[in-house]
Amino acid sequence: MTPKELNQNSMIGQTIYNLATQLWPLNRSLTGNGVRETLRLIQQQLPDLTIHEIPSGTPVFDWVVPDEWNVREAWIEDSNGYRIVDFANHNLHLVGYSIPVDRTLSLDELQKHLHSLPDQPDAIPYITSYYAPRWGFCMRHNDRLKLKPGEYRAYIDATLAPGSLTYGELLIPGVTEKEVFLSTYVCHPSMANNELSGPCVTAYLAKWLGDLPYRRHTYRIIFIPETLGSIAYLSRNLKHLKSHVIAGFNITCVGDDRTYSYLPSRNGDTLSDHAALHVLKHLDPNFKRYSYLDRGSDERQYCAPGVDLPIATIMRSKYGKYPEYHTSLDDLALVTPQGLAGGFTAIRKAIEIIENNPVPQVTVLGEPQMGKRGLYSSLSAAPRDDTVKMMMDMLAYCDGRHTLLDIAEIIGRTAEELMPVYQQLNVQGLIVDLDTHERKAL
Amino acid sequence: MTPKELNQNSMIGQTIYNLATQLWPLNRSLTGNGVRETLRLIQQQLPDLTIHEIPSGTPVFDWVVPDEWNVREAWIEDSNGYRIVDFANHNLHLVGYSIPVDRTLSLDELQKHLHSLPDQPDAIPYITSYYAPRWGFCMRHNDRLKLKPGEYRAYIDATLAPGSLTYGELLIPGVTEKEVFLSTYVCHPSMANNELSGPCVTAYLAKWLGDLPYRRHTYRIIFIPETLGSIAYLSRNLKHLKSHVIAGFNITCVGDDRTYSYLPSRNGDTLSDHAALHVLKHLDPNFKRYSYLDRGSDERQYCAPGVDLPIATIMRSKYGKYPEYHTSLDDLALVTPQGLAGGFTAIRKAIEIIENNPVPQVTVLGEPQMGKRGLYSSLSAAPRDDTVKMMMDMLAYCDGRHTLLDIAEIIGRTAEELMPVYQQLNVQGLIVDLDTHERKAL
Amino acid sequence: MTPKELNQNSMIGQTIYNLATQLWPLNRSLTGNGVRETLRLIQQQLPDLTIHEIPSGTPVFDWVVPDEWNVREAWIEDSNGYRIVDFANHNLHLVGYSIPVDRTLSLDELQKHLHSLPDQPDAIPYITSYYAPRWGFCMRHNDRLKLKPGEYRAYIDATLAPGSLTYGELLIPGVTEKEVFLSTYVCHPSMANNELSGPCVTAYLAKWLGDLPYRRHTYRIIFIPETLGSIAYLSRNLKHLKSHVIAGFNITCVGDDRTYSYLPSRNGDTLSDHAALHVLKHLDPNFKRYSYLDRGSDERQYCAPGVDLPIATIMRSKYGKYPEYHTSLDDLALVTPQGLAGGFTAIRKAIEIIENNPVPQVTVLGEPQMGKRGLYSSLSAAPRDDTVKMMMDMLAYCDGRHTLLDIAEIIGRTAEELMPVYQQLNVQGLIVDLDTHERKAL
Repeated sequence: MTPKELNQNSMIGQTIYNLATQLWPLNRSLTGNGVRETLRLIQQQLPDLTIHEIPSGTPVFDWVVPDEWNVREAWIEDSNGYRIVDFANHNLHLVGYSIPVDRTLSLDELQKHLHSLPDQPDAIPYITSYYAPRWGFCMRHNDRLKLKPGEYRAYIDATLAPGSLTYGELLIPGVTEKEVFLSTYVCHPSMANNELSGPCVTAYLAKWLGDLPYRRHTYRIIFIPETLGSIAYLSRNLKHLKSHVIAGFNITCVGDDRTYSYLPSRNGDTLSDHAALHVLKHLDPNFKRYSYLDRGSDERQYCAPGVDLPIATIMRSKYGKYPEYHTSLDDLALVTPQGLAGGFTAIRKAIEIIENNPVPQVTVLGEPQMGKRGLYSSLSAAPRDDTVKMMMDMLAYCDGRHTLLDIAEIIGRTAEELMPVYQQLNVQGLIVDLDTHERKAL
Repeated sequence: MTPKELNQNSMIGQTIYNLATQLWPLNRSLTGNGVRETLRLIQQQLPDLTIHEIPSGTPVFDWVVPDEWNVREAWIEDSNGYRIVDFANHNLHLVGYSIPVDRTLSLDELQKHLHSLPDQPDAIPYITSYYAPRWGFCMRHNDRLKLKPGEYRAYIDATLAPGSLTYGELLIPGVTEKEVFLSTYVCHPSMANNELSGPCVTAYLAKWLGDLPYRRHTYRIIFIPETLGSIAYLSRNLKHLKSHVIAGFNITCVGDDRTYSYLPSRNGDTLSDHAALHVLKHLDPNFKRYSYLDRGSDERQYCAPGVDLPIATIMRSKYGKYPEYHTSLDDLALVTPQGLAGGFTAIRKAIEIIENNPVPQVTVLGEPQMGKRGLYSSLSAAPRDDTVKMMMDMLAYCDGRHTLLDIAEIIGRTAEELMPVYQQLNVQGLIVDLDTHERKAL
Repeated sequence: MTPKELNQNSMIGQTIYNLATQLWPLNRSLTGNGVRETLRLIQQQLPDLTIHEIPSGTPVFDWVVPDEWNVREAWIEDSNGYRIVDFANHNLHLVGYSIPVDRTLSLDELQKHLHSLPDQPDAIPYITSYYAPRWGFCMRHNDRLKLKPGEYRAYIDATLAPGSLTYGELLIPGVTEKEVFLSTYVCHPSMANNELSGPCVTAYLAKWLGDLPYRRHTYRIIFIPETLGSIAYLSRNLKHLKSHVIAGFNITCVGDDRTYSYLPSRNGDTLSDHAALHVLKHLDPNFKRYSYLDRGSDERQYCAPGVDLPIATIMRSKYGKYPEYHTSLDDLALVTPQGLAGGFTAIRKAIEIIENNPVPQVTVLGEPQMGKRGLYSSLSAAPRDDTVKMMMDMLAYCDGRHTLLDIAEIIGRTAEELMPVYQQLNVQGLIVDLDTHERKAL
């Protein structure tokens, strides 16, 4: 990267980080006011974001939208009135979707409702029970070990009642109706890589897209609860998505700075996959390449049989593969401005490739005379510089059968390098975009 | 294998071995009473086996059914009346299809009619001369070296005269008319791996198939002389076979316990090949994989251009690749109950795959809710056990474009493991078999 | 190679070398009398060669045929009248397409018009300036260093005026109208591997082709100036070439004896590519395999998008990849009779493959009975010799879907070995050529 790019990166990283800090304390879950408040704060950045509500009980494919969950207060007190664990201190202390309770129990009875991690004794685990009525608390194992026999009062002031599932949607129109689909989720309380990084990076990708002077494609961006949100969204929009979406990404785990990771679409051979692989190969040749068998997020829905959208995933450290995953250790120290900037940049570059991926065809037969166009030296022994080599190699494959990304792969260049060459040759009339013709027919 | 499976294997191995012992003494050849008696004894196990005769002189593709050969007596005596070699002691002593003779010769003249193996001086070689009128004897090289100059009487009381070529055929009907074709040969005298193992294992595969409560496919099983028998059978049945056979195996060399071997069909990419490779990969990762260029048995006919049946071969030690091949050392000590059980099991498993190879399609869009079907825990942190992972991975590829075997390969499981999962999900209505629909259209 | 083949090779190598010696002194360039005289001398070997002239100013695709260049005299004298460089001594001393000049200059001014190679101080570089009016001289760097300050007279008596671009064309008819296209270039002055080897080897390939008693294909052979010549030729003949040419080679750099090289067509998967790879693999397993990205000769035109002819390149040391390239060191010591014979042989073998590449289909079902045709022993134990194995393997793939070259690759033989086997089996009626039927339809 150039110093200018590095500086821009540093600025965007800090900006995204600030949004994450702002969203951190909210108690997001599958449903509830934490989600609403998260979306309202994102809406401050993206005024065109529409907020949708789907009532509890609505059937969505094989599922039903559950009751809405909201928590006011939740804690456990010992017989001295000392709060051994308090939801007010950390959202993760309460098992997600816990039912209301106010009971006094012996330590033995209480233990059945406690969750901790013996191997990570200073981490609070993240536990939910969306589909079976339970209550429980999560705590550091070290704290749990200190509990003494006696009476404890468990108190959860929560409602689990008909309401709705909330999600945000933003449509940024382009010249064509072909859509690029970006999806991220807003159902994780107070964890940073998985998952505040997702909505925060996505919000700033949306801002960047909205500010572009020209967009070939239309961008559809959603902020949803994971799994049930994507299922609900698909159940409402599948037909439209299948006929319009040409590429897209599930945006998750884009905040730490340890590595880059790639998880393919189920198909594995879509434009999204090719763009992601091209970007990561050049950004970090040692990026970690996962199989679709390692899937675990909303690609499970987007790539399900019969849905089959071209959705791939570019991540930093992948969910389930880093030690802090789904614990209180996945915090705003683990996620950094630099890590967020890296996640933002990789996906931005992949989108730029998708946005700038013509099917160029050269307009002359045989090699064009570059000299008369001032495109290279007329003296045979002058070293043809590498730019000329790149231009001639590119032209050699402008046969109307390869996209610019294909050509970049064939000739061993980045698509990013080829974009200005394409522009120059297109302006000179030496190549036309066959895809443009197709597009004009829309 | 489980102890129960091991025990069953040991029983089936012994049973097959007993049949081999019973068939051992018969003088099988391309034609003749040894073949008939072999088929009659197999018929005792498989009462529905039909025995066919094709008269000598019948044209079969590029060939003609030869005269029938039967031997009553054959020996060489020295001038003292001592029998230096006697067909009564071992069928291999006589060159197959030897013409009758009663001559007294000097040792030098006799030598032109003797065959032995200097490199295996204690083995009697196996020699035939089906298509040129010759006579000869085979003996241990060590015995040959002891012959002293003098007069010898060579006596062969045999008939080589119009008769017929004999083969057995068994049709075991299934729900569909799609056929699985099993072929083995009965033309080798007194050799065990190549080739008593073939008809004996095949006989018990036929018994096992006949006892199945349900068969999707129809099974066509033939016991023929090699080469001319398969050519003759094809010349009578080619049109039917080409339109019905979906898979099949040439069953040969399935009796020793040194290794597993695979020889592909000429096409190399048929269901038989995929099933064979899948079974052997999991049964013995070090199995020996041959090329079609190493062929040497009836796949030469079944896979010939214009015939092109999907026939692959699963073996233990392959013909031509073990030192005892085509000698008297290929005996019932080389072949073992354990080796026969292994050959039986590998082919049985391949047939089970072919028999249970639906094209599953999931019936819901998006991931099914497994929890409400009791298929996994409702608490998010409960470790999804490996069976659930297998089920979800399988479902992810139930897209109506992959067979169960394809899915097993993609998700790195055995087809055998997936079969009960398929059953469970099918019963729950979560998947249907697209191939069933096709089948119903028959 | 057999001793006879080696001897023939030695003879053809010497014969080609003699032609190179004869053509060496001529001042070839993009146009001019050096080209005409070169073609006239080649015409002595190939009387049917037609010589074409395209007038200056004629548009050819994206280019225009330039003025014709002829040189009478060119030198630089110092103030003592000593000629420090003289075109009469070596054609390379004069920058190609230099404009006329008669000027007296200081050493400093003169230096701007001198070219030499500091890293190869005893080599005269090869420089041209076809498309910008310049003049200049090329000299050994060691000589240049000796130049003393003073006055120098640069004198070039040349004409650069409307004339024509000259090329030669030879059509050798075959039984079918399908064409094999051979192209070589005649625009390089006094360099031997690149490029006297090209036209000299091509001339003798043409003689060999003309002397064949039977040609399945028609051969179109052109001797042109590189780049502009191929562009001009294509602009006149593209439609015909696209509908007739099935294979071909750009013949260049076929004279030294250091290595073999292969440069693919742009498509990479044409008959020419397969034939070239097959020949080189067997001729020299360590041959150097280049990518189309390493292209640099007339394949740039023949394989350009929209032209897409199936033209590959078989070379010895590739242009741009050997130290003497484009200097006076690429001389008749670097190129040898043995090197030329090797280039000739490799391309001849590739042409023989293309010429003898039927699509054989066996005429019988099942394995043919070879014994009754005297094609192998009737005794089972007689070792089937390797020729029989080759014949049976070949027959196994004579399914009407593979060419003889395909079969050679599948069964691991050379196409050359299979040709007589094909003939024998074809004469016996065991195989027919499906491609022949297609041909008869012409």
